[in-house]
Amino acid sequence: MTGSGPGSPLGLHRVLEPAGVLPQAAWRLDASPGLWQDEVRVRVERLNLDAASFRQLREATGGGAPAMRAEVGRIVAERGKMQNPVTGSGGMLTGLVEETGPDSPLGLAPGDRIATLVSLSLTPLVITDGLAGWDGRSEQVPCRGHAILFGRSIATVLPADLPGPLALAVLDVCGAPALTGRVVSEAAGRAAGGPPVVAVLGAAGKSGSLSAVAARRAGAGRVIGVVPSEAEAATLRAAGLADEVVIADARDPVALAAAVHGAGGPAAVTVVCVDVPGCEGGAVLATADGGTVIFFSMATSFTAAALGAEGAAADVTMLIGTGYVPGHARLALDLVRCEPGVRGLFEARVTEGARDGKVEA
Amino acid sequence: MTGSGPGSPLGLHRVLEPAGVLPQAAWRLDASPGLWQDEVRVRVERLNLDAASFRQLREATGGGAPAMRAEVGRIVAERGKMQNPVTGSGGMLTGLVEETGPDSPLGLAPGDRIATLVSLSLTPLVITDGLAGWDGRSEQVPCRGHAILFGRSIATVLPADLPGPLALAVLDVCGAPALTGRVVSEAAGRAAGGPPVVAVLGAAGKSGSLSAVAARRAGAGRVIGVVPSEAEAATLRAAGLADEVVIADARDPVALAAAVHGAGGPAAVTVVCVDVPGCEGGAVLATADGGTVIFFSMATSFTAAALGAEGAAADVTMLIGTGYVPGHARLALDLVRCEPGVRGLFEARVTEGARDGKVEA
Repeated sequence: MTGSGPGSPLGLHRVLEPAGVLPQAAWRLDASPGLWQDEVRVRVERLNLDAASFRQLREATGGGAPAMRAEVGRIVAERGKMQNPVTGSGGMLTGLVEETGPDSPLGLAPGDRIATLVSLSLTPLVITDGLAGWDGRSEQVPCRGHAILFGRSIATVLPADLPGPLALAVLDVCGAPALTGRVVSEAAGRAAGGPPVVAVLGAAGKSGSLSAVAARRAGAGRVIGVVPSEAEAATLRAAGLADEVVIADARDPVALAAAVHGAGGPAAVTVVCVDVPGCEGGAVLATADGGTVIFFSMATSFTAAALGAEGAAADVTMLIGTGYVPGHARLALDLVRCEPGVRGLFEARVTEGARDGKVEA
Repeated sequence: MTGSGPGSPLGLHRVLEPAGVLPQAAWRLDASPGLWQDEVRVRVERLNLDAASFRQLREATGGGAPAMRAEVGRIVAERGKMQNPVTGSGGMLTGLVEETGPDSPLGLAPGDRIATLVSLSLTPLVITDGLAGWDGRSEQVPCRGHAILFGRSIATVLPADLPGPLALAVLDVCGAPALTGRVVSEAAGRAAGGPPVVAVLGAAGKSGSLSAVAARRAGAGRVIGVVPSEAEAATLRAAGLADEVVIADARDPVALAAAVHGAGGPAAVTVVCVDVPGCEGGAVLATADGGTVIFFSMATSFTAAALGAEGAAADVTMLIGTGYVPGHARLALDLVRCEPGVRGLFEARVTEGARDGKVEA
């Protein structure tokens, strides 16, 4: 069943339907284990579902282990990849390199323990253990099976100095700090009125905490961390990642804008890292004219953002946050190594997930 | 039934459900005719449905006049605004100012013939004639009824020197040339390798043709116009708006990228003006590393764009095209006045709509 040709670096040869689209846009992929010449097969150890998808699955199934396992298993069996049909998003995975095609440009060798830096939504995947080791309560899913990397499917060898679950959690969101740093750095370079104010919505979360730190390093004059609850506010204050911590529901545009304005806003750069729908309008209102909003949440609605800004006559630049910026993995891992506040936050989340697991298992 | 207070400039006082969201995000608005102090009531003459919504309605109903009238009527009666529940988008309208609240900041007077520059998706609207004058075949919908403008609902008095339907068609898409011009101008300012190559997908359409001209004026070195058919290619060539005209299906990422590369690409700036879903991956592949994609199509999927760029390991900046950039209305009208190629294209489209109408009416 090995592919006969060199394969497309984008994986087009694995698209079963509809024909001609990219793997990410495909309904169904061929996840058979035989390799085309530039592919790599990975023995999967763990899936990391993206936050928006995990939340949707939990709400749709009720969150019990059997229902969660069945639903993820059904999606992967049907589509040949883990792409949540409601959110369109996926996540990433870790595993051991099992076999590399002779023409693979990825520089990986059998036995390497790697994390994928492309989305599960375009990665051919077969699950063989029914996800028996998953309690359904953590985004990190112990999993046996195999996955396929294409010529352009970037992946990184897991660092030896960080625990695997911690590294996976960091790499899952590593595009956010990289792009935030780039945008804040540009804003700082042209700021007429001093170093830019940056608001991070969901600043106590994974992508949010890394983005807050990246913003500060890139020259932010003031980082405003927005969180939904007093508990998260306490966590964020203890971590020391933001100059101001405010509590607001990001789905309430008026309350959100008031909170950010009251903490020294409006923001020159607003970073949206919350995984619930409906935050577009508030993000726009929290941002100064001429400023930039970066949407990292997979729950973002394109039309809501476009028409919301128009409706408020707001002259803001709105960026679709992508998971790929050159050097993003190294930057994010370095932030966790050097910033005890971020590391503590990530370790608490990873431990919490594991503990939750034990409670139910 | 007149509002008792000053009203919120964003129209929050008209939101019926869910509570607390902006009018654009609301399911249902209060479209009653009584004015809050900073509002304006418009006697509607014509709706201009946005292209993505019009296409969806036509495909869902079959396109016959009675079905189209019934569906638009049903949506407006149910929601108090014309927001297509599938696409989330709306359009705009023209009409006569009927009454202005004492505190309206819009500078309008009763009798002014205006076009709204905010989306119908956030504009309270009541239809009173059952859309009897609409044949269902044109995006421009003759309509009687009233609409409400909030304090921040920008609107413009229709120019005296251009026919109303032509001006409406131009104003409907006036955000696209303004933002395209800004982005191309920035790219030209920092281009190391000479004036930037700009690809416009859907270059024979309304927003596409205006964007192509705006790109050239902003310093593009080469404008590549992409169209889906030989007929549109002939139109675009005759109009002289692009340096290269290529035919490709924008939903086929490989074919699109090959066409743009073959015409002098990849593009430093790619402008997506097609109203069908599934163009995200191709737009990313047509764009050079370090380049920018501007998505104007309301059929754009946020996750498809974000994950598609990640999956291709493409370092591109992706912008959510907004309908508001300061000065956008004047810029677009000036382009139509000064560029006979664009004007011809718009006049043909407007006439075609009217002729189609007569055929069926």
